Amino acid sequence: MPMNMPELPLPTNAANTGLDAADRSLVDGVTAGQLRPLAKTITLIESQREDHKLRAQRVLEALLPHTGRAMRVGISGVPGVGKSTFIEALGLYLIEQGLRVAVLAVDPSSSVTGGSILGDKTRMELLSQNPAAFIRPSPSACSLGGVAEKTRESMLVCEAAGFDVIIVETVGVGQSETAVAGMTDIFCLLQLPNAGDDLQAIKKGIMEIADLIVINKADIDPAAAMRARSQIKTALHMLRPASSNWAVPVLTLSALHKQGIADFWTAVTDYRKALTASGEFAAKRQQQAMAWMWELIDAGLRSRFRNHPLVKQELPELARAVQEGGTTPSIAAQRLLGHL
Amino acid sequence: MPMNMPELPLPTNAANTGLDAADRSLVDGVTAGQLRPLAKTITLIESQREDHKLRAQRVLEALLPHTGRAMRVGISGVPGVGKSTFIEALGLYLIEQGLRVAVLAVDPSSSVTGGSILGDKTRMELLSQNPAAFIRPSPSACSLGGVAEKTRESMLVCEAAGFDVIIVETVGVGQSETAVAGMTDIFCLLQLPNAGDDLQAIKKGIMEIADLIVINKADIDPAAAMRARSQIKTALHMLRPASSNWAVPVLTLSALHKQGIADFWTAVTDYRKALTASGEFAAKRQQQAMAWMWELIDAGLRSRFRNHPLVKQELPELARAVQEGGTTPSIAAQRLLGHL
Repeated sequence: MPMNMPELPLPTNAANTGLDAADRSLVDGVTAGQLRPLAKTITLIESQREDHKLRAQRVLEALLPHTGRAMRVGISGVPGVGKSTFIEALGLYLIEQGLRVAVLAVDPSSSVTGGSILGDKTRMELLSQNPAAFIRPSPSACSLGGVAEKTRESMLVCEAAGFDVIIVETVGVGQSETAVAGMTDIFCLLQLPNAGDDLQAIKKGIMEIADLIVINKADIDPAAAMRARSQIKTALHMLRPASSNWAVPVLTLSALHKQGIADFWTAVTDYRKALTASGEFAAKRQQQAMAWMWELIDAGLRSRFRNHPLVKQELPELARAVQEGGTTPSIAAQRLLGHL
Repeated sequence: MPMNMPELPLPTNAANTGLDAADRSLVDGVTAGQLRPLAKTITLIESQREDHKLRAQRVLEALLPHTGRAMRVGISGVPGVGKSTFIEALGLYLIEQGLRVAVLAVDPSSSVTGGSILGDKTRMELLSQNPAAFIRPSPSACSLGGVAEKTRESMLVCEAAGFDVIIVETVGVGQSETAVAGMTDIFCLLQLPNAGDDLQAIKKGIMEIADLIVINKADIDPAAAMRARSQIKTALHMLRPASSNWAVPVLTLSALHKQGIADFWTAVTDYRKALTASGEFAAKRQQQAMAWMWELIDAGLRSRFRNHPLVKQELPELARAVQEGGTTPSIAAQRLLGHL
């Protein structure tokens, strides 16, 4: 459907008309489950070029009817907790069950360091060589918001390509956990069997958003792992549960020795069943989509505001006046808003 | 300075020309330290009437040159921790030292309940009767942002009226602690001598923003108070300090028996000295003012957006499409932003 329709030109599920041949072939390749068109579409989504952005929107719109069927799993944990080992073990287990697995990442630091937590595919060597797997490093963008948006859209492309499970990995930096929890169905926190590790997660507010907690490396000191498990359960008891239909499980496992992976996946499917039965599963996705829309609107409003000629001209001087107490923030805000 | 000056009409410190007689008398009364004009000006600030809002801005602008000299102290703690008793004891102590004390409150629930945590002045009977004190209940407004903005502005009016210490009290509900920490120089958290109370504060992220922690009711069980103190110190050790020039003290006191109040105030003045020496004191106020300005700008942008006729018309349908997966959040956001 072209953008200049006279009636309210809502993008619809029939939007894959009006694509040029190149975009058409991307859409067809992705929906056929081919990895090359999938990778090319994600590259288009990650591009900063304006013409690429427009193409990406059109392709994404055409792919939308094919999305929504995957289980979206967020995985977080501090460096050293064994995320790659865990994701590789989980991915290979799921492939054994006949599922296709995509692994994406949200790492806002990748644009600073030039690298990425997933850039080095040797971290998940077996998984990356498996034809039923697709591994993509974190997009590089200047802001967490930018990284998260591209990852969300890449996730949709992977779904359209027929992947059954999308794993979104993040390192424990800043607000990236919140971003990943905001785009996945279940947010899993990996912990080390250390006393104190749980306190870190509590203070950073991460334990509050976890739907499932996993103590990895439990084989090294099983007694310590059980102590950590009991501490975390006590802490969870004090936090208000996100859903009254789900008590956050605390599992112990060893990703290295592939112990506990099946139990982990059982917990994930239990979660899906429980929240689907209560209607919360679909409601959560709807809320996530709305929150994402408003985030983009706010960012767009702020950017338009900053680029307004009069705002550009007056903002520095007014900001200085506010800082020096020559005017109040509300007078300055009103004056600047008055230019729009 | 009238608002229609041809050159960039920055509000300046000489802005108290152009006031009408009524506003002039408010400004003169406030700067003379009179309580009735002070209360009337705050009522003007809290009014929802558009003409009152304009008058409030003019009066505030005229008062600005007289602001900035008070110590702004935020006090938070769960119900039952003894906030009123503590604030009354602190207020009377400061008045004994020759200082004038204003007490304001941020209680977003007051607009819901119709009451206010400070509505009942009998809670601080002695302080409220003292001519060197000014106690004002929380403004009632529909949002925390609204309550916080009015309290910030009332704080400036109290400063212009010559109050030396402004205490801003808040209950531990939602984000009100962050709002109070964002408008005061020092944010003090009152705790009970209970194990577990500290965990609550950690998990809610409040301990992270505290500059000073006070364990009240330490007289009831001094041993428990010392245990709580040591637990909190351990927890603080794991949190990143807000300033490298300030180690957050954990004091024990009994507000009821007026024990430890002088030590509390010594800690507050030590804090001011340390952060003034490092330049952080002024920098923090500047950052607070800028953050406040941007908060108001964002709220203003969002409100203008929502009121745009085409946005009003299309938002419901696009929101539904986003929720149902008929379009992506970014396509919907771009379409709506395109109307501006």
